[in-house]
Parts: sequence; structure tokens; C-alpha cells
Amino acid sequence: MKNEYALFRYEEVAAKVTGIIKNLDLSTGDRVPSVRQVSEELQVSMATVFQAYHLLEAKGLIISRPRSGYFVNATVKNTQVQKPAGKYIPLPSHVTLNSMIANMIKNVRGFGVVNFSIVAPVNELLPISRMSKAVRDTLKDPAGDSFQYPLIEGHPRLVKQIVRQTFDWGTGLATDEVLVTNGCIEAINLCLDAVAKPGDIILVESPTPYGILQCLESRNLLALEIITHPDTGLDLDQLARAIQQHQIAACVVTTICNSPIGCSMSRENIIRLVQLLSQHNIPLIEDDALGDLSFSHPRPLPAKAFDKANNVLYCTSFSKTLGSGFRIGWVSGGRYHEQIKRLKYISNFFTNGILQDAIGRFLETGLYNGHVKKMKTALQQNLARYMDSINRHFPDEVKIAAPKGGFSIWLELPAYMDGWELHRRALQEGIGISPGQIFSTSSQYNNYIRINYCPMWNMKIDRYLAKLAALIKKYKSIPQLTPN
Amino acid sequence: MKNEYALFRYEEVAAKVTGIIKNLDLSTGDRVPSVRQVSEELQVSMATVFQAYHLLEAKGLIISRPRSGYFVNATVKNTQVQKPAGKYIPLPSHVTLNSMIANMIKNVRGFGVVNFSIVAPVNELLPISRMSKAVRDTLKDPAGDSFQYPLIEGHPRLVKQIVRQTFDWGTGLATDEVLVTNGCIEAINLCLDAVAKPGDIILVESPTPYGILQCLESRNLLALEIITHPDTGLDLDQLARAIQQHQIAACVVTTICNSPIGCSMSRENIIRLVQLLSQHNIPLIEDDALGDLSFSHPRPLPAKAFDKANNVLYCTSFSKTLGSGFRIGWVSGGRYHEQIKRLKYISNFFTNGILQDAIGRFLETGLYNGHVKKMKTALQQNLARYMDSINRHFPDEVKIAAPKGGFSIWLELPAYMDGWELHRRALQEGIGISPGQIFSTSSQYNNYIRINYCPMWNMKIDRYLAKLAALIKKYKSIPQLTPN
Repeated sequence: MKNEYALFRYEEVAAKVTGIIKNLDLSTGDRVPSVRQVSEELQVSMATVFQAYHLLEAKGLIISRPRSGYFVNATVKNTQVQKPAGKYIPLPSHVTLNSMIANMIKNVRGFGVVNFSIVAPVNELLPISRMSKAVRDTLKDPAGDSFQYPLIEGHPRLVKQIVRQTFDWGTGLATDEVLVTNGCIEAINLCLDAVAKPGDIILVESPTPYGILQCLESRNLLALEIITHPDTGLDLDQLARAIQQHQIAACVVTTICNSPIGCSMSRENIIRLVQLLSQHNIPLIEDDALGDLSFSHPRPLPAKAFDKANNVLYCTSFSKTLGSGFRIGWVSGGRYHEQIKRLKYISNFFTNGILQDAIGRFLETGLYNGHVKKMKTALQQNLARYMDSINRHFPDEVKIAAPKGGFSIWLELPAYMDGWELHRRALQEGIGISPGQIFSTSSQYNNYIRINYCPMWNMKIDRYLAKLAALIKKYKSIPQLTPN
Repeated sequence: MKNEYALFRYEEVAAKVTGIIKNLDLSTGDRVPSVRQVSEELQVSMATVFQAYHLLEAKGLIISRPRSGYFVNATVKNTQVQKPAGKYIPLPSHVTLNSMIANMIKNVRGFGVVNFSIVAPVNELLPISRMSKAVRDTLKDPAGDSFQYPLIEGHPRLVKQIVRQTFDWGTGLATDEVLVTNGCIEAINLCLDAVAKPGDIILVESPTPYGILQCLESRNLLALEIITHPDTGLDLDQLARAIQQHQIAACVVTTICNSPIGCSMSRENIIRLVQLLSQHNIPLIEDDALGDLSFSHPRPLPAKAFDKANNVLYCTSFSKTLGSGFRIGWVSGGRYHEQIKRLKYISNFFTNGILQDAIGRFLETGLYNGHVKKMKTALQQNLARYMDSINRHFPDEVKIAAPKGGFSIWLELPAYMDGWELHRRALQEGIGISPGQIFSTSSQYNNYIRINYCPMWNMKIDRYLAKLAALIKKYKSIPQLTPN
């Protein structure tokens, strides 16, 4: 029987499959020979080949696509080198990026033909018809009260489903630990208002999602940027030193699928982060808006799942998985939850109940996890195509951070190049990119850009990436001063 | 011919009709003899009788109900006496009401069987089926992008309709002067953030809608309360003196249908307010959320319509006319508009596009004005029924401010009574009312309560108003200290 060797042989089979891919000269996005073909060719059981394929998938070499088989995953030709954090302790800094960010958004809206700066899943990836049905059902329900004020905490149907989603955290959340918000960024704003006052120092990742820097700036909070590595995420040693040196009011971290880098922290590091901050009584505001889109399977647990001290203020949203048009997120504020609820009420009373009820109905169908899985595969394939274009067009001096999920590719240009200037020139060609400048209060990412692979790859995208590559290749002039 | 005297005789006819009502012993809500009957009885033309009825309606003695004829309007038996403002200038004061307000809301939610404290139109008054259709159309539209981020300013379909609504302001707004928000209270919060910093003094009405006091408290702004009269609204003389005496950062006023009092300022006073504040360069934040529900016809123009200096920050909402569940409002921020747009983006990016598009579609049908007119008549009739109950049950020492629109009746109890204590006792009977304490930083409204006539009147409501009256009659004990 072929089957009896299966358990011992799948690693060997995986190595052979890697050889086949190489020999066939398959490139990113191409279909890998089917399980049956490999089973017949190598004379091993299909179960063994399946295990081998799972191993290759876990290693990121191939991607499975339900009912379509396996495909060659992206390879990153020129990987970014992890920078040493050094022994220095960064200094807190005022944030003055709002004008620059507002300009970028306005420019891209005005001139971007292809927009690589937006972070929002396209319609092809969304469960449009099922969500539309859910909204219709909400409006039809004679027992529903969609036209009235919902409860402060959120619509009970949605809150119940949110609580169900946290069951695999070990001790999941209770319904009174959840507050529905207008998206994740509102949740983060409410958390900052609950824990910090003007002039306080907030630890953030470096680079930081610019939305968070804007929150700090609008509240006159100081940012203390902790280096974040493409492979391992937030540098915990530097964080520990910063805590010793400064009075810190809070720490805002995207533990899973950080943007712009696309990195995720390991489980061990997340646990260490939670412990470190709770020891020092520094609240951890966790931004998990992209966590469900981690390419790992199952998705890594967020810091909140390890929060024994009620010290984690967990913020997330359905924007990245069900549609950014809904503007429905939620927060679980740990020991600050009551205060956050009150701040939400003051700020805009409640989040509309109609869309909450509709999302609750969609979650009740039990189709969310399957939808997210399909979406992640599609995203991974899209990323593979983008990487292939980048590998083909971009010069070798451009270094890439391989994303572990989400929507962003973080590119390091040669040191003499200026991201803002490239952004300006790209706009003239109708290309919208995000310059590194908007992700930090320092100048250390002036030669970086972020490309979001939200638009589905096609030949036009390939052409525009080639155009962008051409701009990089011919970039010669002295970087202009970054406007402020 | 009967007709020739019509123009001269309608006042005389009106006086006769008043006599008929008296002779027939008609009470609030009863049908008045039809135009035809009066025309025949008095031997005057129907046109003259119509004019007479319009006059009586304008005087508030009768209410017309489309296709049902005319009804006797409410009379207020015991009117509140306008308090003299005196020559004193009030002092700015810190706001510390959040806990009390949160307690009140929690209590009423927990124990209120009949809730007279909520301000939200019931389903019977709302265009549910048309609005539901509009939402369905939004989701069906293949050209729509409801699942994607809407534009920062708001959905173009809605913004266009909002601009149309301002056409009768003289010079209406332009599309780039409108920003859609999550309800009116978010608009007010954004305005406060744009014009004031912690410690600044804000002029408000006294009594003030408690939502606004909460906004001030959360921002550590000081409230300077200007006396507001049941008949004429904000006391402009006291306002002028306060401006001389203090450095004022902004003024928040509900010009039309103030809550809790239910008063509206006259056109002359509104114009004087706009001029006074613009002369002193003090931004006027206008809360017009209830303005469309003014019983005057057509509705009085808001301060923004007279704003030549771009000094009025206009805030309003569709919550009170289309359904509070939508949470869709808007702001036109005058010279602070760009800054307000930026603050909105930082705070929660955008307001969801689906419900914006749907409201836009409903407005496109042209049915909004007709709907509001019908709603106002229903509200006025409901108010008449409430007033009748109050007149019948409440002791004469309870003084009433006759509302000019909106949802609130403001009751003054004898000085030895405590609104919070009555609220506590009423809750034990399952009745939710709002105590005067939450509408001011001072103790001057401790013997007031607000009753919202949102629930449609029926025999149960009458019974509960009778119960409340009984509590007032037997109120004897020494007022307890108001909790804080």
C-alpha cells in the first residue's frame, strides 16, 4: 500500500515538488501540477502529496485557491535588511504631518488614475450580494427598530456575534466589554482620549500608520517612535529601554499585519509586549483592523487574547473584510471601557443601527470565516502578481519588505531618493503612491514609499508599475525639500 | 355676492369662529366645524372662512390636518413667567454633569416603561417604507460604490440635495461648504474642536441641551450661560454684556426650537445675534437639528442664512425628521470649514456612504417637505393631547413653556421641589423624565423637568401623566441632595 509511508515521506515529497516547480520554470501565479499528477508521477499516496503541499503553503512557496488547485507564490527578489535598533533611546517628538497628509490625499484623489495609496478591498473581494441581502432583511424585519436610536453599546445582534468571534481567544469577551464605533480609527481616537492628555508621550511603531500620527497631532500628543522590523515587528528591547527613560501614557501597536510594513509580531513577542506594558501600567491600544487578513492560518491571536490585567484596549473594524463603506468597527477598552463608552456617547451618541444589524445578520450566517479565507487567498494571489511585476520592472536597489498579510508593500529606495518627490512625479503620470514621509515624525523614511495592492492586478497595473519603475530608474535630481 | 367682502371680513369671521368653539364647549383635539358649515351659518364666502381659519391657525388656536379638517389646538393653562435677566453678568463655570447624565440615561433605559426623556420621532411619524426603498435602491445601483469609502465631504448625491435645501436662504450654500457627519452632535463637537481649546469660555443658552454641556465638559471648556426666555429665546442684552466682560471663544445656540424650552428666536433677534457675534469675531455654532420641526410655516430661517461674515458654523441632522437610527447630519463651517473637514477625517475618516446615498435618493423624490409638514401636524396634534392631559392632571403651581416646535415640554415645579428627586420617584413608577439639573451648570433649574412628547398620545400616556401629576401633588419631603 502506498499510504503506509505517508506520514514519514511528505517532507521528501515537498522537496521533490520544489524541484518540479524549478524544472518546469514556473513563475509567480502559475499553476503547480495537481495533487493527482504528482501522486502518480512520484508513486506516493495523494494524502502524502496533500501534506507536502500544506508544508509548501506554510513556507509561503505556493498558495492554494479553493477548487482551482495550487499556484506559485510570490518571491521577494530584493529583501529589506533588518536595521539594528542600536542602544539609543529615541526622543519623543511633536507630530506636524496633517498638512502633508491632507495634501497627499487631495492630490491622489485629484490626479491618481491608478491609486496605490488607498487601503480598501475592491468590490470583487467583498460579499456584496449577501451583505445587501442582510441590509434588506434588516429593513424588512417588523420586530427591528432600525429607524430608532440603537443602544449605546451597539446593536445586540452585532455585539453577540462579535463576542462569538472572540471565543477562540481562550477567555473571550463578554457583551458588556464591546462598544461599536464608526470604524477602527474612531475606536483608537476614543482610547487615546480615555488614557492621555495633551503633552503626554505615546509609544508608536516606526514607521507608524499615518492615521495614528494624525490622531496624536490633533490631540497635541507626542510620538515616541520605536523601530519596527520587517520580519519581527516592534523592537521590544528598544521599547523596554524607552519605558525606563520616559513617562509613557500609552502605546499604540498594530500587532498583526502592520501597515505600511506588513509585518506581524510573533506570539511570544506579543505575550512579552502585553506583560511588559502591564508591568509598567502603560495601556496598550491595539489596532487589529487588518488582523483577519493575516496570511497565516488560523490568524494569529491579538494581544487582547493574552490580556490578564485588562490593560489592552482592543480596536478593530469590519472595513477591511466586509467593505470600507460601512464604517463599522468596535473597541473593547479593558479597564477604560466605561470611560470610552461615555466619550463615544458625547462624541456622536451611537453608531447607526441599520448597518450594525445587517453585519450581525451576515455574521449569523456563519459565512464570515469562509469569506475571509477566500478573500485572503485572492489577496495573496494578487500580491504574487504585484511582486512579479515589481521583480521584473524595479531596479535591484529597491528593497522590499515581504508582507505577512494586509494590503501594503513597503519599498526602500536608494538613500538619495525622496519619497515625496517621487510621489509628486508619479502623480504627473496618474499614479498614486504614499511617500515614506507621512509614516514618521523623523526623516528616516524619506526614501521609502508604500504601494497598496488593493486594485486587482491586470495588464494596466503592470504597465503603471513599469512606469513607476521607470521614474525610479531615471530619478536623478537632488531631492527637493519636503513641504510641510 | 358674498365674495366681495371677503378681504375685509375674515378677522371678524375669525372672532365669530372663536365664539362658536367656546359655545360648543370644544376641547383640545376636537374637530372644529368645517369651512362649509361656517360659511353657510355665517353667510360668508368659503374663501373668507378659509382666511379666517388661517388666521386662527397662525394664532395657534386651531391646527389643520390635511384631508381631515381643523382641530382645536392646545391651550397652556399655566404659562411660565419670563424671568428678568437683570443687569448681572453670569460667570463662566466648569461643567461636571457627565456622571449625572449617564446615570439618568442608564436609569431611564433600565426602569422606564414610558420614556418621556428620549428625543426621537417614533416610527409612525417616519417615512419608513420610502426610506427602506431608498436604501434598497442604493444597494442595487450597479454604478454605486456603497461598499467603498465615500468622499470625505460626503456622498455627492446627498450633498447636492442638502445644497438644494438651502436655496431659500437667499444665497444658499455651495457643495464645498457642506460636510456630512455622524449626526448633529458630531458636527457640534467638530466645530468646538475647530474654534476652542481647553479652558476657553463658551457662551451657551440657559437652560442648555445637555448634549452640548457634555461636549464642553469632555473638552474642559467653560460654560457661560445666558438666560433664555420661553417666549423670545436667548437674551441678547445679557449676551452683549457678557461679551464686554469676558474673552469668549464661541457661542453655541439653538436659534429655532430650542430644547428643553421649545422656544425660537425671532428673525430680528437672529439677525442681531449674527451681527453682534460677527462684530466681535466670536464664531456662532448654530444647532439647527430641530429647526425643520418649527410649527411656523414656512420654517424660520436659521442664523446661517444671515451670515455675511462666514462666522456661523451651522450644524444639523436628518435624525429628527427621517429617523434617529440613520445618524446622518451635516455641518457648514464658515471660515473654519476646511479645518473641520480635517478634524472629521482624523476622527473617523468618513460617514458611511450607504445611508447618505439613501437619504439623497429620498430627498430627490421631492417628498421631504411634504413629509415634514405632515409630521409637524401630527406632532402638533400630539402636543395638543399632551397639553390637555397636563392641563387636566397637573396642579396649577406647575408652570408650562408652550413649545414652538420640536419634541419638548419644559415644566417649572414649585421652588421647593427637586427635579432629580422627582425623576427618581417617577422611575419607581416606570416613568422616565429629564430633571432640570442636567440642563445647566447652575442650580437654577433644580425645580424643572422636561417631558418629551415623542411617544404618541393614548390612554396609557394619559394614565402615566396622571401618575406623574400625583407624584407632584404628594411631593412633600425635603429635596435630597442632587447626586454628582
